[in-house]
Amino acid sequence: MTEENAMRKAMQAYIDAFNVGDLAAIVALYADDACVTDPFGTAPKTGKQEIQAFYAAALELGAQLRLSVPIRASHGNAAAMAFEVTVNMPQGPTVIHVIDVMTFNDAGKFTSMTAYWGPADMQPQA
Amino acid sequence: MTEENAMRKAMQAYIDAFNVGDLAAIVALYADDACVTDPFGTAPKTGKQEIQAFYAAALELGAQLRLSVPIRASHGNAAAMAFEVTVNMPQGPTVIHVIDVMTFNDAGKFTSMTAYWGPADMQPQA
Repeated sequence: MTEENAMRKAMQAYIDAFNVGDLAAIVALYADDACVTDPFGTAPKTGKQEIQAFYAAALELGAQLRLSVPIRASHGNAAAMAFEVTVNMPQGPTVIHVIDVMTFNDAGKFTSMTAYWGPADMQPQA
Repeated sequence: MTEENAMRKAMQAYIDAFNVGDLAAIVALYADDACVTDPFGTAPKTGKQEIQAFYAAALELGAQLRLSVPIRASHGNAAAMAFEVTVNMPQGPTVIHVIDVMTFNDAGKFTSMTAYWGPADMQPQA
C-alpha cells in the first residue's frame, strides 16, 4: 500500500508540475495503464498516449492549479484534493472548482484520476 | 441523470441533517441498496440497516460537519465535497479533514458514499 504521505507528495508534485507547465512530469506520475476521467460523466482517457494528449491540451490553455484545502489521504490506495484551476478560455480567464480523486498502485503511481466538477463549477475569473 | 443542483442540494441536506442529529433524515437520503465506505480502505457498509448503524455511531460522537469549500458536482451522477467533521472522541474533541464522493440514482438518492481521509487527516481540535 502506498503510504499516505507518499500519496500527498505525488498529488502535490502533480500540482507543481502543472504550474511550471511540465507535461512530461505530469505524465510520469501515471502508471502505464492508468485512466483519467475529467470531468466524471465524460469518456475516460486510457493509457499514457491519451493521457499525454489530454494534459497537453490543458497546458495549452495555461491551466494553473491552486489547492483550496489540504490534500486528504485515505486508509487505502486513494487520496483526494479540492482545488481551483484557472484556464485561458476563448471567452476569457475562467476558474473551475474541482475535486480530484487519485488511486495508486504499490509503486506510488496514479492508476486513475477522476475529476468532479459540473457546469456551474466553471465561472469567469473574478 | 440527476441535475447538478439537485445533487448539491442533497449533499447540503446531508450536512444539515448531521448538524441537527437527525438520523432518519440522513438515512432517507440513501437508496435501499447503497454502500458507504468511510474511510476508503475499510470495509463497506451495505444496505439501510448497516448504513443506519454507521450513522447512529457517528451521531453518538456528536459529529458536526462544516463545508470547507463549495460542493462540486460533475457531468454525471456523482458529486464531491470537502469538509471538516468535529467529533467528541474519548481522547477529546477531534477534527477530521474529509472529502466525500457521492454517486446518485435517477431518483436523486445516494447509491454510494466514499470518504477520503487518512490517519494524518484526524487531529486534536485546535
